[in-house]
Amino acid sequence: MEIALLKENPDLPHVLILGGGFAGLYAAKRLSDAPVCVTVVDRRNHHLFQPMLYQVATAGLNPSDIASPIRSILRKAKNTEVLLAEVAAIDVTARQVRFTDGSNQSYDYLIVATGARHSYFGHDQWEGLAPGLKSLEDALDIRRRVLLAFERAERETDPVRRHAYLTFVVVGGGPTGVEMAGAVAEIRRYALRRDFRRIDPAEATVMLLEGGPRLLPSYPESLGVAAKQKLRRLGVEVRTETLVTDIRHGSVSAAGWTIPTQTVIWAAGNTGSPILKSLGTPLDRMGRAVVEPDCTIPGHPEVFVLGDAAAFDHQEGGGLPGICPVAIQMGQYAARTIEGDLAGRPRRAFSYWDKGQLAVIGRGQAVADIWKLHFGGFLAWLIWIFVHVFFLIGFRNRVLVLLQWAWSYVTYSRGARLITEEVQAPGASLRSVGISAPSP
Amino acid sequence: MEIALLKENPDLPHVLILGGGFAGLYAAKRLSDAPVCVTVVDRRNHHLFQPMLYQVATAGLNPSDIASPIRSILRKAKNTEVLLAEVAAIDVTARQVRFTDGSNQSYDYLIVATGARHSYFGHDQWEGLAPGLKSLEDALDIRRRVLLAFERAERETDPVRRHAYLTFVVVGGGPTGVEMAGAVAEIRRYALRRDFRRIDPAEATVMLLEGGPRLLPSYPESLGVAAKQKLRRLGVEVRTETLVTDIRHGSVSAAGWTIPTQTVIWAAGNTGSPILKSLGTPLDRMGRAVVEPDCTIPGHPEVFVLGDAAAFDHQEGGGLPGICPVAIQMGQYAARTIEGDLAGRPRRAFSYWDKGQLAVIGRGQAVADIWKLHFGGFLAWLIWIFVHVFFLIGFRNRVLVLLQWAWSYVTYSRGARLITEEVQAPGASLRSVGISAPSP
Repeated sequence: MEIALLKENPDLPHVLILGGGFAGLYAAKRLSDAPVCVTVVDRRNHHLFQPMLYQVATAGLNPSDIASPIRSILRKAKNTEVLLAEVAAIDVTARQVRFTDGSNQSYDYLIVATGARHSYFGHDQWEGLAPGLKSLEDALDIRRRVLLAFERAERETDPVRRHAYLTFVVVGGGPTGVEMAGAVAEIRRYALRRDFRRIDPAEATVMLLEGGPRLLPSYPESLGVAAKQKLRRLGVEVRTETLVTDIRHGSVSAAGWTIPTQTVIWAAGNTGSPILKSLGTPLDRMGRAVVEPDCTIPGHPEVFVLGDAAAFDHQEGGGLPGICPVAIQMGQYAARTIEGDLAGRPRRAFSYWDKGQLAVIGRGQAVADIWKLHFGGFLAWLIWIFVHVFFLIGFRNRVLVLLQWAWSYVTYSRGARLITEEVQAPGASLRSVGISAPSP
Repeated sequence: MEIALLKENPDLPHVLILGGGFAGLYAAKRLSDAPVCVTVVDRRNHHLFQPMLYQVATAGLNPSDIASPIRSILRKAKNTEVLLAEVAAIDVTARQVRFTDGSNQSYDYLIVATGARHSYFGHDQWEGLAPGLKSLEDALDIRRRVLLAFERAERETDPVRRHAYLTFVVVGGGPTGVEMAGAVAEIRRYALRRDFRRIDPAEATVMLLEGGPRLLPSYPESLGVAAKQKLRRLGVEVRTETLVTDIRHGSVSAAGWTIPTQTVIWAAGNTGSPILKSLGTPLDRMGRAVVEPDCTIPGHPEVFVLGDAAAFDHQEGGGLPGICPVAIQMGQYAARTIEGDLAGRPRRAFSYWDKGQLAVIGRGQAVADIWKLHFGGFLAWLIWIFVHVFFLIGFRNRVLVLLQWAWSYVTYSRGARLITEEVQAPGASLRSVGISAPSP
């Protein structure tokens, strides 16, 4: 792989950004006017607004409502190239990144913003049974599983099996788990209400299992309590201190219970992207690279690790949560720091400006922790909507998403209730097709 | 499989409808007030507005813009059940349909509206190389192939290979082929224009190959000529009398030419659904069941075959085209005929009321043949938009689709430019999951 812009400007420092999430994108945007060449590499062609991914998984939004091509977002950044490629290894000594197609790319600055993936805490066999929610593919997979469970229940005559089809278990009581449980509870009560003839979707069981003592552990305690109450009002069975010990085809075991279910959704754990291991730097318990106060790894001031990939422990009050504002601020910080280096300014430590956290529970219900104010209900929900729509990248998306939400709110319907099969792609899987470049 | 409604009303005649396309859906809607029990069976959960499928394939619309759950469409038809199942065989003598999960269903009236699938004229090995456009999965597959071709071209340094990535061949000059070629030509010229750094998408080659002497063979000749001119103005290389003789990985052979290309789209031939063979009735050259003037098969006045599955040759001017208005009118006719039977009225022959045909070529360009008037250009395009949006099922879809088109028209952008991978579903493919009902 050769970088065309770099060939034309061999004297400019080259900033290589791995990952087109919030951290990578905000770094690239900020660097678009700096005297550098920038390359953004991602193994997907789109930036994804992960906080609303559960809306795709629960048929409220379409994939393209929450995703935009990285190329289009960075279209005006004339010093920036976007490449669809997958990283195989990072060699910080040689200052080189190797890709899975065998090509190499050297850099002057490296920004590692490769995010997190699910962690099954050593039970990798659970992955196929209990999908997590990180990518559009994950979301469409969960959507299909949830909708198919209702379809199968409609055809099932055995009452025990029918109950298993109508039992949905969400594992993990963080924001994703709370949002998923709330959304599935709403679908069954409203969107599907009159669609079936033999089953009553409203009677489906939705369970939220959390191993710790309360929901939303990274939020103030009062909000965890409020979320639990609101979920219960939606008919979700919330069980805290209920650690999942086994997941098999057809059942979940937790705290002595065995729950017959056909649909398990995993929202319990994250781990840093595996590529971080090749940095040769200490990782924390969650597989994230431990970074210095300037978000670089020890001994390599030219290698930044940002967002969910970074373990940043230099702020009072402990580590930073894995949320968008952290990633955005880190991306902007890394770009400013590189600009400062080039201008000969000394580095300043990164400092996170905490504007708060929001989690949505359902129609008109959310909890908010904003500038030390803790509150729930309709106002929190309105703030959630506007903050999230505001951060959606692309004006078209914002307008359409607001319209769809308004429509769903009035009608209780969910328009994207489609069960699509996986595409039977000929030959190799597309991941490999997208990355290797076979001869024509 | 037991039909619950039927068990409650054992004396009512049972109408079994195979297929939730236009013919099946309009038959079911019309029968919703009749003294019958209706079961609609489809192997997908959604009705699909096929005339706009090319818009999904070319990133203009989202899947849920042109598809709605069959259950929701028929929600108010209280005498109607919807089942997600796949037909294995039809036994017209025993008046029974067998499903792939082994269950059987008897009927008093059978409506076979299973549509058509691609025909590769005996070259089934071409299917993996040149996907056709019938389902949402097909459309997403084509969208991914087209977008990936540009991504690969951006990374390719060898100019010969790069040209192959930037060559798109559409096979077949009917409405689907014309629409696909026009849409790909527009994407490359407008939507992708400023997204790449090393390639100029506008220089991509789009070819439309037609074996016969002209485009749009089922339309008046002047419109075929007009379509050819308009496509050429968009930069499409149109070649008529160019029969494809071979498709291989990396090239298409036609009329002595060998065209290096990585992306071939098949829009050349249709054949009736394979299930029609089990009817034991004569099929025409295109695999469609030859029907009587009342759309039933010979000797079985209780078995209707409708829409793309039927070869109806009783109208002056030859057979009927495979378009929505034919399917809709046949569906309504079959429902009326069943109602008439129950009321003791004699049957009348089906007669198609031809309101015309439309084909869209690009932004502001279409051709129309309406009530013997033949015209092209902006007016035809406006009529195309309003007719198609009007027939979109679901009010939400109509409003959103109009808004998205308005937005695309003003900005030349295409919002759904996402490359999603196939989902790595654990275990069996979802088609089998959706149909068989494994024990929990």
